[in-house]
Amino acid sequence: MFHFPVQIYYEDTDFSGVVYHPNFLKYFERAREHVIGADILNQLWNEQGLGFAVYRSDMLCHDGVEFADIIDVRTQFYFESKFRTVWKQEIWRPNATKPAVTATIEMVCMNTKRQLQAMPVELITDLQSQAKLGS
Amino acid sequence: MFHFPVQIYYEDTDFSGVVYHPNFLKYFERAREHVIGADILNQLWNEQGLGFAVYRSDMLCHDGVEFADIIDVRTQFYFESKFRTVWKQEIWRPNATKPAVTATIEMVCMNTKRQLQAMPVELITDLQSQAKLGS
Amino acid sequence: MFHFPVQIYYEDTDFSGVVYHPNFLKYFERAREHVIGADILNQLWNEQGLGFAVYRSDMLCHDGVEFADIIDVRTQFYFESKFRTVWKQEIWRPNATKPAVTATIEMVCMNTKRQLQAMPVELITDLQSQAKLGS
Amino acid sequence: MFHFPVQIYYEDTDFSGVVYHPNFLKYFERAREHVIGADILNQLWNEQGLGFAVYRSDMLCHDGVEFADIIDVRTQFYFESKFRTVWKQEIWRPNATKPAVTATIEMVCMNTKRQLQAMPVELITDLQSQAKLGS
Repeated sequence: MFHFPVQIYYEDTDFSGVVYHPNFLKYFERAREHVIGADILNQLWNEQGLGFAVYRSDMLCHDGVEFADIIDVRTQFYFESKFRTVWKQEIWRPNATKPAVTATIEMVCMNTKRQLQAMPVELITDLQSQAKLGS
Repeated sequence: MFHFPVQIYYEDTDFSGVVYHPNFLKYFERAREHVIGADILNQLWNEQGLGFAVYRSDMLCHDGVEFADIIDVRTQFYFESKFRTVWKQEIWRPNATKPAVTATIEMVCMNTKRQLQAMPVELITDLQSQAKLGS
Repeated sequence: MFHFPVQIYYEDTDFSGVVYHPNFLKYFERAREHVIGADILNQLWNEQGLGFAVYRSDMLCHDGVEFADIIDVRTQFYFESKFRTVWKQEIWRPNATKPAVTATIEMVCMNTKRQLQAMPVELITDLQSQAKLGS
Repeated sequence: MFHFPVQIYYEDTDFSGVVYHPNFLKYFERAREHVIGADILNQLWNEQGLGFAVYRSDMLCHDGVEFADIIDVRTQFYFESKFRTVWKQEIWRPNATKPAVTATIEMVCMNTKRQLQAMPVELITDLQSQAKLGS
């Protein structure tokens, strides 16, 4: 399990007083970028023309998240194929006994023309040891 | 079927060149607000302390959406109970033969303390005639 | 004077109940994109590797803007040089007697390496007739 | 001088490849929230019905900021009156010799009806010692 803290700012909330729901997908992505490594993502894009795109996101919002909360984004992932990774992610409020938000997110590897590509072997090896680390 | 056009601006894209995926949830919500009516949502919140919260969003991204596209957000919905509505929404690029994004979104009625509430009878009647209109 | 309507959605507000101030810069940009033309901006970028970047934005927030408001974004602009345009923009709430937000925004023409470039003569001619139209 | 790091994610960029300019105002605000304290802001709002609103923001964008950058948001502020604070803020890219973005931002104290209010004496004392700390 990877843990990534996110502080909730004004920009994250809406007038109902809690976090605006699409923002949860942002926090999940920030957490994934930290697991993979922003530098690796940057290099992959600039040198090999490869990136990850979200193919599916299935998210359940159980509880509201409030301004000034520091949430814990919990992340696990596994390989479904050399094209696809599946991420199980959760958002926990401070001192909570169950997650506020849970999600399953599928990411596929694509080239700059948005055509499906196999992940480079080296990247798979790297990510697989990360996945083990976080399991 | 309700149709709602959204133009894609700089703010909607990321450096990969296409729309950043959480933004699709924003367009779906804008479209729902137009179906229900922003004034009705405003009144409901200010006078009765009631609002709609997304409980679940399950989204599939089939195709990238680009800067300057004017997309068509297509919306249908039905009642699952007096607490819950289910929305089938799609994003179509100009001249496309299939949707770029499809989603099923469940909304529940809540009070300002985020406790589940039955929708007022009058609202259900209004929405049901809307739902028929859009079916 | 160009007029561009923007409806305020959930995504635009924060928990204080009004529009989150950086979003005003988004509305100003949407309005500028409509004045210039999204297709022209797209072509300029893809065919000539040229774009506009905000160099300076000076914004005054006089009044809060609320959920469900349909604001009127008013825009005028002039040329300061072949590198730079200056935009006077305002946000008006419905039935207001003075603007809620006013701004002066300077845009410069840049290539994809973010080096200052003169605007193509043809573009200047086009924009100058637009500027006259909106004056 | 206060230092606050911000990592640049996908969500921060647009298709031109650099950070979308209104987002700089977000980073400035996050930094201010850390200087004042999110808990203090939360308490002030919930217990005394007071908040800070941006009255003016004057921002200069000298240089583009890129994906995966970890920027340093530098902040200094002073009191102009018991109603108003002025913030000098800058964004520095890693290893830069000059700031990428500079801004002067004026914040006023308001009640929940957006009427100008004097800051509570206790808050002024707290903030003044913060201001000294960061000078």
